[in-house]
Amino acid sequence: MSEPFMFEKPLGMRDVLPNLHSMQRKLGDRVLQEFRLWGYEQVQTPTLEYYETVGKASAISDKQLFKLIDFHGNTLVLRPDMTAPIARLVSSSMKDIPYPLRLSYCSSLYRALQTEGGRPAEFAQVGVELVGDHTASADGEMLLLLNRALIQAGLDHFQVAVGHIGFLNALFLEIVGTEERAELLRRQLYEKNDVGFKEQVKAFGLSSIDEKKLLKLSRLRGNEAILAEAEQLTESAEGKQAVAELRDLWQGLKEGGLTRYMKLDLSLVLHMSYYTGCIFEVYHDRLPRPLGGGGRYDHLLAKFGRPGPATGFGLRLDLLAEAVGKLEVQPKKRCLLYSRERRQEAYRKATALREKGMQVVLQDVAGVDDIDKMSASYEEIVYLIGKTEEGKR
Amino acid sequence: MSEPFMFEKPLGMRDVLPNLHSMQRKLGDRVLQEFRLWGYEQVQTPTLEYYETVGKASAISDKQLFKLIDFHGNTLVLRPDMTAPIARLVSSSMKDIPYPLRLSYCSSLYRALQTEGGRPAEFAQVGVELVGDHTASADGEMLLLLNRALIQAGLDHFQVAVGHIGFLNALFLEIVGTEERAELLRRQLYEKNDVGFKEQVKAFGLSSIDEKKLLKLSRLRGNEAILAEAEQLTESAEGKQAVAELRDLWQGLKEGGLTRYMKLDLSLVLHMSYYTGCIFEVYHDRLPRPLGGGGRYDHLLAKFGRPGPATGFGLRLDLLAEAVGKLEVQPKKRCLLYSRERRQEAYRKATALREKGMQVVLQDVAGVDDIDKMSASYEEIVYLIGKTEEGKR
Repeated sequence: MSEPFMFEKPLGMRDVLPNLHSMQRKLGDRVLQEFRLWGYEQVQTPTLEYYETVGKASAISDKQLFKLIDFHGNTLVLRPDMTAPIARLVSSSMKDIPYPLRLSYCSSLYRALQTEGGRPAEFAQVGVELVGDHTASADGEMLLLLNRALIQAGLDHFQVAVGHIGFLNALFLEIVGTEERAELLRRQLYEKNDVGFKEQVKAFGLSSIDEKKLLKLSRLRGNEAILAEAEQLTESAEGKQAVAELRDLWQGLKEGGLTRYMKLDLSLVLHMSYYTGCIFEVYHDRLPRPLGGGGRYDHLLAKFGRPGPATGFGLRLDLLAEAVGKLEVQPKKRCLLYSRERRQEAYRKATALREKGMQVVLQDVAGVDDIDKMSASYEEIVYLIGKTEEGKR
Repeated sequence: MSEPFMFEKPLGMRDVLPNLHSMQRKLGDRVLQEFRLWGYEQVQTPTLEYYETVGKASAISDKQLFKLIDFHGNTLVLRPDMTAPIARLVSSSMKDIPYPLRLSYCSSLYRALQTEGGRPAEFAQVGVELVGDHTASADGEMLLLLNRALIQAGLDHFQVAVGHIGFLNALFLEIVGTEERAELLRRQLYEKNDVGFKEQVKAFGLSSIDEKKLLKLSRLRGNEAILAEAEQLTESAEGKQAVAELRDLWQGLKEGGLTRYMKLDLSLVLHMSYYTGCIFEVYHDRLPRPLGGGGRYDHLLAKFGRPGPATGFGLRLDLLAEAVGKLEVQPKKRCLLYSRERRQEAYRKATALREKGMQVVLQDVAGVDDIDKMSASYEEIVYLIGKTEEGKR
């Protein structure tokens, strides 16, 4: 460990400069405005939570957590996701407000990095949670709202993959028999490693029928037509129930007129282990990783003492800005450059312009070292220097 | 140390529920909009910074810092203020952009608590930094912008105390001779402990002339008339220079027509030790502590490698919401409660209403446990249940 230079930031920590900040803010505002129109109310939870509560419930691996110890010896974490904090909030500060609850947020999340790899250790996420509604209509609302919010943000040509973790869990348990082996398969799918998945399937030494069933998964990607095939793969009530839920969900998407960017993908597995039902993930050609995702988590609320079905999703603002692409350069500003004797005149002019909504920088010429350099960053400079044109005031 | 209950939050950590969040957001937006009109560009810095850089430069006492250790053994802190991070930013990511620089932010700050005392350990602050301009016009801009932003936020009857730390430092050094003794006096003034200040003055055993000079400080509160008295207190060039700066500043405020809420207070001392010149603090009758404050810090930038004079201020959003007072209750929403067979009709209606900017909750009746309870939270419920009025579609 060597001492950091004064200009250095911790690993994965970023400064957001004016142009990018302005863009992220505008995109975030548009998405949050759509959330509001759908009746989602914005809340905020603390940056720090107990490791024993939210930290563990978040299901983020320990080594990705930023941890610290408070004065009383408790371990705290910087929140690694928003779903667990909102589950805590719904079960405590909002426990008397009846289900269903519709909440939204715009918050920074934190994931510790061990090496520099271009990933941020802090990123802003906007999202919603719909708590207390078990219906396929609620799952459908997530996808419709997700679609609508992305379109409002100006994004086009994104893709949403929709799967069902309950289907996979049922199928895997039927075929490979144990939770441990199922987890090995889920990990390959989570990493989108088709080759690894095949090798893992082969390694189990299953009957050729069972092997074929598992290998068929990667072909269960498309529209509702794949659901009939999916239903034939599984014998269990849970598996068949999952397929029925997806059929119901797809029906809702058709009614909402928004299947355009949607694709069923029954091999989809997400990062968080708390999901229980329909799950989904959003991709965009310009991005190296998913822009966001979410799904149903019907058991998490019970951990915090207020059981209830729930679903939700989150979108990363940094990736959204990257996907939308066109980084708007801030319009250059107007500057009133004045000398002391005309300061009052400058104040008056600036106030009048700002009242019309115009952006005006007021600058005392005595505070500028290099006027040429400074001038270059303005669209227009009005000089109020020396005597006024009309003579002394 | 006992394990926390699932619903618990760490000491001083708060949830912000929808009504308060909505209010804080609106107030923050109005203030930030005023900052934009004055040409301040919003930036964001990371939550975590190195202790050795920003942590130490922030001049917040060690026991108020949230600290953690990263994988490389470096100590990190949750940022305790924004001035030092922006000084780092100006000296690194923005080092090629010429002075003067006008930057704004809206960020959470963190101060660790050892006991519960009603204070938050995390709070949002909006503020500006004007870097690279040494003039009294720059100091004046801070006060004019502060005034204007508070008025735009809907606040009235606030008070701003304006002092000069350079004046106090010069006066104290002249009279009590050492930096250690000066610090004892500043501490009493910072704590606004008039009795403690008097006792400390007596304890030094000064000449009666010197004693009188120090005790006169507490009467140097008012308008520009006190500046003549202040000038007589000090012999040093630094002290007289400070008074001249205040006179210059006050002249600017008069030109801006905004002395109404201002009061000179030459005994003012702020928390941060990096201040070097004009300083100020904002109060409101409804608040138990200052709403915000700021001032000139001409030596901080040099620590980060890009020397330059600077001034700035910050306002706490939680206190601003408290001072503005009237917590607007969110308007109750419209709900379309539908049964499955009329879902498509509900979707269509909701979309049409939202396109007009109306807030509409869509709710599948099958997802509601207690319809009476749920209904109570809506202004209007439209039932789309059973067959349509016009018969089946």
